[in-house]
Amino acid sequence: MGRGTAAVTSELYERTGPDLRRISLNPDFWYPVAWSHKIKPGKAFATRFAGEPIVIVRPDNGAPIYALEDRCAHRQVPLSKGTVDGDVVRCCYHGWSFDRKGSCVTVPYLNKPGVGRGVKTYPCHERSGLVFIFPGDPELAKTVPVPIPCQADNPEFKTRHFDPLVNCHYSFMHENLMDMNHQFLHRKQMGQITARFMGQSKGENFVEASYSFARKGGDQPLAERLIFGRHDKTIDIKDQPVDEIVTIRTTYPYQTLQIRDKDGDLVMDLWVAYVPLGKDETATQSYGLLSVKRPKWKFLLDLAWPVLGIFTNRIFMEDKEIVEMEQQAWRDLGGDHNVEVFPVVRNLRELLIRSGVPLPTER
Amino acid sequence: MGRGTAAVTSELYERTGPDLRRISLNPDFWYPVAWSHKIKPGKAFATRFAGEPIVIVRPDNGAPIYALEDRCAHRQVPLSKGTVDGDVVRCCYHGWSFDRKGSCVTVPYLNKPGVGRGVKTYPCHERSGLVFIFPGDPELAKTVPVPIPCQADNPEFKTRHFDPLVNCHYSFMHENLMDMNHQFLHRKQMGQITARFMGQSKGENFVEASYSFARKGGDQPLAERLIFGRHDKTIDIKDQPVDEIVTIRTTYPYQTLQIRDKDGDLVMDLWVAYVPLGKDETATQSYGLLSVKRPKWKFLLDLAWPVLGIFTNRIFMEDKEIVEMEQQAWRDLGGDHNVEVFPVVRNLRELLIRSGVPLPTER
Amino acid sequence: MGRGTAAVTSELYERTGPDLRRISLNPDFWYPVAWSHKIKPGKAFATRFAGEPIVIVRPDNGAPIYALEDRCAHRQVPLSKGTVDGDVVRCCYHGWSFDRKGSCVTVPYLNKPGVGRGVKTYPCHERSGLVFIFPGDPELAKTVPVPIPCQADNPEFKTRHFDPLVNCHYSFMHENLMDMNHQFLHRKQMGQITARFMGQSKGENFVEASYSFARKGGDQPLAERLIFGRHDKTIDIKDQPVDEIVTIRTTYPYQTLQIRDKDGDLVMDLWVAYVPLGKDETATQSYGLLSVKRPKWKFLLDLAWPVLGIFTNRIFMEDKEIVEMEQQAWRDLGGDHNVEVFPVVRNLRELLIRSGVPLPTER
Repeated sequence: MGRGTAAVTSELYERTGPDLRRISLNPDFWYPVAWSHKIKPGKAFATRFAGEPIVIVRPDNGAPIYALEDRCAHRQVPLSKGTVDGDVVRCCYHGWSFDRKGSCVTVPYLNKPGVGRGVKTYPCHERSGLVFIFPGDPELAKTVPVPIPCQADNPEFKTRHFDPLVNCHYSFMHENLMDMNHQFLHRKQMGQITARFMGQSKGENFVEASYSFARKGGDQPLAERLIFGRHDKTIDIKDQPVDEIVTIRTTYPYQTLQIRDKDGDLVMDLWVAYVPLGKDETATQSYGLLSVKRPKWKFLLDLAWPVLGIFTNRIFMEDKEIVEMEQQAWRDLGGDHNVEVFPVVRNLRELLIRSGVPLPTER
Repeated sequence: MGRGTAAVTSELYERTGPDLRRISLNPDFWYPVAWSHKIKPGKAFATRFAGEPIVIVRPDNGAPIYALEDRCAHRQVPLSKGTVDGDVVRCCYHGWSFDRKGSCVTVPYLNKPGVGRGVKTYPCHERSGLVFIFPGDPELAKTVPVPIPCQADNPEFKTRHFDPLVNCHYSFMHENLMDMNHQFLHRKQMGQITARFMGQSKGENFVEASYSFARKGGDQPLAERLIFGRHDKTIDIKDQPVDEIVTIRTTYPYQTLQIRDKDGDLVMDLWVAYVPLGKDETATQSYGLLSVKRPKWKFLLDLAWPVLGIFTNRIFMEDKEIVEMEQQAWRDLGGDHNVEVFPVVRNLRELLIRSGVPLPTER
Repeated sequence: MGRGTAAVTSELYERTGPDLRRISLNPDFWYPVAWSHKIKPGKAFATRFAGEPIVIVRPDNGAPIYALEDRCAHRQVPLSKGTVDGDVVRCCYHGWSFDRKGSCVTVPYLNKPGVGRGVKTYPCHERSGLVFIFPGDPELAKTVPVPIPCQADNPEFKTRHFDPLVNCHYSFMHENLMDMNHQFLHRKQMGQITARFMGQSKGENFVEASYSFARKGGDQPLAERLIFGRHDKTIDIKDQPVDEIVTIRTTYPYQTLQIRDKDGDLVMDLWVAYVPLGKDETATQSYGLLSVKRPKWKFLLDLAWPVLGIFTNRIFMEDKEIVEMEQQAWRDLGGDHNVEVFPVVRNLRELLIRSGVPLPTER
């Protein structure tokens, strides 16, 4: 009775450093907070980063979008509930209006200028259908590049958007994708596929792992075949000729998954950013773009597109369920009890801890 | 980037005193906690004041109602779940019974008197269809007058009851009604109407502000016309002849809104009391009576009555949404960040702070 | 005004010892956590004791069931979401597998044994259709007997299972059943029945009370008549010939209710165990077995069985509502304010306090 005998030997895996689930994402990066097409001219859009409410305003006069703190300086109600007039956003309550510099332009019932306090602004940029903001020090925004999300702007690829909300800390999402040994979780969707670890590399701001895959039994699903190509027979993982290589990389704070065929050509490219919604960062809005190389007969991909969507969505739902269970266990236990044995994930955890910022202790 | 330039000049509006949202209503006043008609003879009615559960008992023998703490002295279950026998209320669990003095009269299975502890009582009074209790020091109840709610008992007026539950601190409700510069919020209901501030007054226990209104465009809604009379043309607010004057007054802890016509006669009289439900006073049960002067052709008012109800309700729903957003912003920010520029509201805030009682710090 | 006059004389009933609602059940007993028939061969079943997640595994090879902490040693997700292969349970995420000793047997993607940490085990036993675990010190499990639930294995009785979830501390359930003076609560189901206290006894680990019942008016419900036999006429409680005796006994931590007829023969036997679900023990999963003596014409009992189910369920729903109101009052008041006047319940409270374990103060 009591803990199993293996417990003693594995104590060396115990965590001693800070709790990864109490490490906040570093705000001094560009983060997506909306899809561009969701914000029409003359409209204000409410979004959020780590508990900070943000309004994205698209003027009706063709001027570029801008981002403000989504609280009126007067009584703190959301500016996103108001109206957009030309280049300014007007609060729905008493009609105070603010420009792209966050300055209060008018207080309609007081006939003197400069009477209202201004609101905070955020550097803001649109790229590849995403609206990015820079939540950290605005001075650093000029020096930090806006990311290029996968092949979204490459006509040789077809790109799919997705934006699942997952109720867990962003770090669980990074670990989930990086550790391809969790294919057992997807056994119903992907059959008896097994990942073979091919190697890793790491640097100041990244961790990368490569895998090949082999099927140990069962039929190959249609959607998988469309991406990976057809595997003619069930082969032993040790003896298999390497066809595709899957490379997962966390380049802080983003994550990518790329599949290259036997000639080394990119056939699939996934880019994901994880955006914390609340102050405690236990709810994560993902923004993902999945690019698939168009085959020679392009209509094939168009034909397979809906199937691919269903397939990736089912896999994603399994991942969402498991990472939310991890978050729940963290809550129940009052801290991180992970015992990691896979070196890639241990490197990833170190990267996320040293690149992030400790959460306030009040959590 | 950063805060707009107007921010610096307006820092002088920053709050330095206590947080108004942590000021509790003063219990040494009479507060409505039920409508009379809801409590039939022989019935007990559950209500609540600032977290204290209260049972109102109406005996089946014609005796006046009374109010007790709504917890049996034995095992603290609500007496309001029990039965009323003659003048006593009997707990539903083990059948202990209590009289209007809060004394335990019988413990059915123990044949000795005086065995059960008693429960707390509240001074209780019925007026104008409302049941009032005095939650503070019972000795003061005799010296504090029960309020007279507007024209509820005046046959020249027709009176409507309403009792919305709003999830915010009562102070947001006082500020909302007092500051008529928020007509922008109701632009869809009331058209392009603009308030013109006409003056204010204040005293030890009150703050009062008067406004006139002018229409800057759009059609005048039917219900508004029935109260205010017809405005024949769109007029500039500066040049308008003053027709009606709207006077809003907080006479602590109640609030009124009165409309007088050009002859100075009262045509509408609104009375509202705000009753906190929970201990933290962030949920408010309002009790309101709206009296409208009957016109010469009385059937006109009866005809318009349903429209008036819909109209006032729509306006109220907009107010409810905005004050609940204010409360949410207060929660998110962990305190009051209002930057008030309108002197009337600043006086009102001072009145509410000096008349109220600080909440326990545990909040 | 203020507290009723009886309040002063009853202050002597005030509680001075520890708060019974902050006393945890003693873990060094056997507690039921599942029905045997719910766990099929080759399946894992999730259950819980006082906040500890537990997985019950029934191997598909005919081996006995076993119980583990329901968290994988790797990333703490529930093992109960996984699969059972022969005698081991395999985590659904990365496929780690654990045996009945809690040892990690395989980490599929790492080719060295003993690499994974083990998980906690619980002593486990099946009896009378229930799965029992021993949540306390495993060494004591051998010395503490597994309880025999009423007449579940006696063919002369027909036994019904029930397992209501009640949102209150287990102590309210013990008090509710022990104090038969609460028949007023069930007046609609049972008519004007009155309990007559016949005596009590107590010992180191038990409290027992006996009652007889008399009907003061109304019709006798059908289901009651089937258990108690027919009462031909309404009789005064003082003068009644004693027919059945109802004996309620808490033998820590279990509770029983037995009915004996005028010859002293057992006709009904109820056994209940209360199992706390969360850490704070304010949600209780009951496991109950109700055995009714088969009459000479056995089909009579079969005929009445559904009616008996409805009858006991209605009574139970009233008890559930009232004990949950007691729990709510405890929360509102921040502690136990019970003023107990019935000696049996006072003895019961002392038993529960001295046999239990104080909850951690963080509650």
